Formats: sequence, structure tokens, C-alpha cells
Amino acid sequence: MKKHNFSAGPAILPATVFEQAADAVRDLDGIGLSILEISHRSAEFKAILAEAQQSVKDLLGIGDEFDVLFLTGGASSQFYMTAMNLLDNDETAGYVDTGTWSAKAIKEAERFGNIVKLASSKEDNYTYVPKGFDIPDDMKYVHITSNNTVFGTEFHALPDTKVPFVADMSSNIFSRPIDTSRYDLIYAGAQKNLGPAGVTLVIVRKGVAGKLKREIPTMLNYETHIAKDSAFNTPPTYPIYVCLLTMRWIKAQGGVAAMAAHNDKKAKLVYDEIDANPLFEGTTKVEDRSRMNATFVAKDDAHTAPFLEACAAANISGIKGHRSVGGFRASIYNAMPMESVQVLVDVMRDFAAKNA
Amino acid sequence: MKKHNFSAGPAILPATVFEQAADAVRDLDGIGLSILEISHRSAEFKAILAEAQQSVKDLLGIGDEFDVLFLTGGASSQFYMTAMNLLDNDETAGYVDTGTWSAKAIKEAERFGNIVKLASSKEDNYTYVPKGFDIPDDMKYVHITSNNTVFGTEFHALPDTKVPFVADMSSNIFSRPIDTSRYDLIYAGAQKNLGPAGVTLVIVRKGVAGKLKREIPTMLNYETHIAKDSAFNTPPTYPIYVCLLTMRWIKAQGGVAAMAAHNDKKAKLVYDEIDANPLFEGTTKVEDRSRMNATFVAKDDAHTAPFLEACAAANISGIKGHRSVGGFRASIYNAMPMESVQVLVDVMRDFAAKNA
Repeated sequence: MKKHNFSAGPAILPATVFEQAADAVRDLDGIGLSILEISHRSAEFKAILAEAQQSVKDLLGIGDEFDVLFLTGGASSQFYMTAMNLLDNDETAGYVDTGTWSAKAIKEAERFGNIVKLASSKEDNYTYVPKGFDIPDDMKYVHITSNNTVFGTEFHALPDTKVPFVADMSSNIFSRPIDTSRYDLIYAGAQKNLGPAGVTLVIVRKGVAGKLKREIPTMLNYETHIAKDSAFNTPPTYPIYVCLLTMRWIKAQGGVAAMAAHNDKKAKLVYDEIDANPLFEGTTKVEDRSRMNATFVAKDDAHTAPFLEACAAANISGIKGHRSVGGFRASIYNAMPMESVQVLVDVMRDFAAKNA
Repeated sequence: MKKHNFSAGPAILPATVFEQAADAVRDLDGIGLSILEISHRSAEFKAILAEAQQSVKDLLGIGDEFDVLFLTGGASSQFYMTAMNLLDNDETAGYVDTGTWSAKAIKEAERFGNIVKLASSKEDNYTYVPKGFDIPDDMKYVHITSNNTVFGTEFHALPDTKVPFVADMSSNIFSRPIDTSRYDLIYAGAQKNLGPAGVTLVIVRKGVAGKLKREIPTMLNYETHIAKDSAFNTPPTYPIYVCLLTMRWIKAQGGVAAMAAHNDKKAKLVYDEIDANPLFEGTTKVEDRSRMNATFVAKDDAHTAPFLEACAAANISGIKGHRSVGGFRASIYNAMPMESVQVLVDVMRDFAAKNA
């Protein structure tokens, strides 16, 4: 029986994507070969890569002002690659510290150029997104983590500045429309809204990379991958293919605007229950709540283990909170159906009825 | 109808692996979740990763004197990571230049430490493997590309030295037993004998990494991945799973010794035909011929296109040679069945009978 998968990542993908992704491992579109065994230089894979790149552009409403790359190494590799490629030793970039991943991004970027921490909510265990801080106009870029998977907060508006943004969108890309004109670079580990683990999406504005004096190993230089259209070396072919299947699904649902409407409804359902239920409470400022990762705890810790058991009994998987927050985390990415969120809410209500 | 896949990589995997790999995308071992959606911190994936690491050790006959890492970025990323992690600025390493990938490894390593080219067959278009060159005892390591996928040559014996080897084994790992005592580090892009594209195996002797004064970004430091047992960040979960399935298959066949016996037979079948057939000739020195990639050309170039057509008509895929060599390349990795090699040989004979 299929589980309700609330895992924070790798995470649920659309049911139809799993079916198509399994079929292609047996035989890709009837060509007599598995997707796993075809050359990355084959006509079939070239078409997959090109459609995947175009789908990213279509979903974000961007054109040739950006290059779309499918790399590897996760957001963790982009933490240093962004600064390594965009920031010279005598240049300054601003970073907003909103959680575990922001802090790691800052640590890695500090090896390259001058990194200024613009604001941080660390002293309050990252329960909110800082606002109203000053951003000097001469910064090269401002780095944000658009959604904080661990702590369950999200930027619902960009800070006010003319400085371009560099954003880690690993856990909320394609979950709503964004104003791409404000970004120089967007990156995302695939394993939440985009696809399976093993591929990292990098969207970089033309003319932004390749300007530094710094010597960069070939594979770490964005210019290498831009020049070879994301196929300098063997790309992670199957993860890219599954991303394409997922993007086809998003398009078929009506694109990111449709995703946003659906995500808002799912988030409202779960947060309304968190607020109404006498046994639970949210862990973040209400106005900064993530639409992707709803974090909450039992008011009485004695209820934590029994509630996890009740979830398991209802076929709910991956609901345990991150150790930095404790309690529970319901990750409700694009592919999470309303029906599964309803199952969770029903378990919460039932648990309260029996234990309140 | 299933094609005979002679692609150089991504490449053929065992038929049973494709079946199992497809099933797991639908549902992993009946747990109610796809392999694509389970957390890398789940008990299920931890077991997969641990079995994959142990399988590498079992197949190579090594123990805890090595750490086994499943990273990303391909051999192309190991070209700089090996030198970055093993060679200080005032240290010297020797490199043997036996083809396209060796030359790239040299170029990337030159950013770190003192790189000496010990020998090269470039002047003869890499048609042989250099032998009998001098290796100074004070070198930190000697780097070789154990099999040259593009040119179809292979090291059948290691150069005589007490200096430890660092080897790119992307295209012949697990194809035969090796003397692991002579290596400090072995790396391999998965997409030939090991699994699908998207994961890179790194086997590093304990105590070899983490000794340098150089500052290294966290994700590029072997020590990071060793300390976190290859799960510092989200690893490429599905590619690792397919590698595990492939290694289970190799074990079930009798391990690398059985692979070697089978590979020798397949290579003999195709090379015997190349040598006997009046229309074709091999492109490398006979004693350095690769058991993985058999390169050959038509003696009369007018036969090249018609032979490719004859192959296509016989359901043979991926036989066209690399542009650096021309002609044809039959990649006959571990998973290639004898029956498919026989089909190729039959097409060669038939082509000669009709055109000689």
C-alpha cells in the first residue's frame, strides 16, 4: 500500500512520474534501450536535456537572458561555486542567515571575497525571516535561502534592494511564480520539488559568470558548462530525465501559478489544524511560515512519541521533525496530494479527540 | 526489440538490473515508497549505502584500510580533487599520458603541486601504452588511466615502482582482479561497468587524505565525506542503488575473476575477427588492446558508412568510433553478453563476404 510521504527530501514526486520513470528504465519510449544505458551524446538524450532546459525556462517565464545548467554536488556545492564564480577577492556580497543551509552557504562563501552577514535569526533558533535590514548598494549580490527546509520558514517577499539576488531555492523552486528580473543566479538541489537526488539545477544570468581574475578548476567554472550547454562531461542522465517528467507534470497541471494555488490550499489546511488543535503548536512566526515544510510540536512532549505512532498506523511516513526543531515536520511539496494532507489532519484531530 | 548496446558510456547494464531498477522506482522492496522518494537518512537507504560500500570492498578484496565513497561530478571532478587533496604545493606527482582523459587529468592537477609527465603516447595518437619509463622514488603518487575508453588501450601490467598509484578506473573497474596494495586511491565514473551516470566511486586508502596545508572547500575535501561515511549531503540515491544492483549481479556471477574470464573470451572473439577479417584492422598495438573497448577501422574508408548501416540493420547500437580515432568502437563491458558480441562478429563476417 502506497504511503503518504511527508519526507523533507528526497521527497514525493507525482505518481504518474514514478510510473513513467519506471517504464523508461525498462525501455525508453520503445527504442529498445533503457534510459540508464543510452549515451549522453545520443539523439534521445540530447532531446531530453534540451526539453528539460526549455521546461525550466517555460516554468519560470524566462528566455535566453539566462543559461540553464544541470550539474551535480547539490546545493552544498553551490555554496562555494557561486562565490568562487561571481565574487572576486576584493568584492563584497551580503548573506541573510535564516537557517542551517544559509549558515553553511556563508561558511563556504567566506573562502572567496568579502562576505557580510546582513541579518540573522539564529539567536531565536531561526523561527523567523529577518526583515527591514540595510543592504548597501555596492554589494555584488545578496544571497538568500528562499525556503528553510529545517526550520519551516520562507521568504514571502524579497528584501528591498537594487542589488541582484543569488538564491538557494532547493526546497521551493517551481512552487509559485517569482520575479526572475531580480535574480542573477538561482540554484536548487533537485530532491524536493524538481526530481530525485543526484542533480542540481543552476540558472545563471548571461554575462554574470566568467568575469573574475580567479583561477577555477574546469569542472567548477560555470563558463565550462555554459559553453558546452550543460554536457561538458557525462551529466546525471536519469535524474535529469526524472526532472523533465516532473516538469512536464507541473506544466500539465497549469504551471507554477497552479502549483501556488494548490500549495496555498494544502498549507492552509495543515496550519489551520495546527492552530486549532489543542495539543499542537507551530514553531515559527505565523507570517514567515513555509508553504513547503510545516513545522510543529506537541505542547506536551509526552504526546510526541504516541503521535508519531498514530501517524505510522495511518500509513504516514517522514513526519518526524528535524533534530534542530524537534516535534514534527510535514513537507508538502508540489507533488503532495491534498488527500494525503487531509489524512494527516484527520490523524491530528483524532489524536486530539483521544488525548485532549 | 532489445538492442545490442555497444555504447562506450553510459553503457549496457545486466538485463536483470534493469528489471530490478525499474521495479524499485515503482516500489522499493514492497515498502510502499519509490526508491526515488525515500530519504537518504532512512533506514532503507542507509542499508543500501552500507551494502554498496561493502560490495565494493568484497569485489576488490579490500578491508578497512580503504574508505569507499560515492560522490558526484564524474572522473572529471576527480582530476582536480585527487591533486587538491593529496598533493601539497611543494610536492611532486607523476602522470602517464595515455589518452584524452589522462591529458585532462594532467591539466587539472597542474593547478596543485608539481606535476611531471612521466611518459606519453600522444605523438602516435595514443595507439599504445608507454612502458619502461623511469619513476623517481620521491614522487607522492603516480597517476594512470587504467583503460583508455577513447583509444582502446589498457594497462595490462602496472609500471615497476614503489610509488603508490592513483588510478582512473572509470572504464575497467571490476573487470578483473587487481593488486590493491599498490594503490592509494582509485576513482571511477560509474557509467560503464558499475552503474548509470550520476555517481562517482572513490576508494581512498586510510591516512592518505587530510594531510595537506591547503584550504579546501568542505564538499571538495575527501575528509568531509570520509567522516560522514559518504552521506555528508544528499548523495545520488538512485544511481547508488543501481550500482548496488550491478555489484550484486557481479557477485552472483562469481566476482571479478569470473568477469575477467568472460571479458577475455568476449575480447578474443571480437579481436580475432578484426585480425582475420580482410576489411577491418585494429587501431592499437596488439599487446595494449583494451578488453573493454575494441577500436577498429575499415581498411577502405568507403566501407565505413555501409558497415554502420549493416550494424544498425542487425539491431546493433553505439558502435560508431570516437571522432579522435574514427571507424568503430565495440565497448564490451562486464554486462555485455557473449551473444551480442557474436551478433557483431557475424555482421562483420557477413559484411566481408558481401564486400570483399
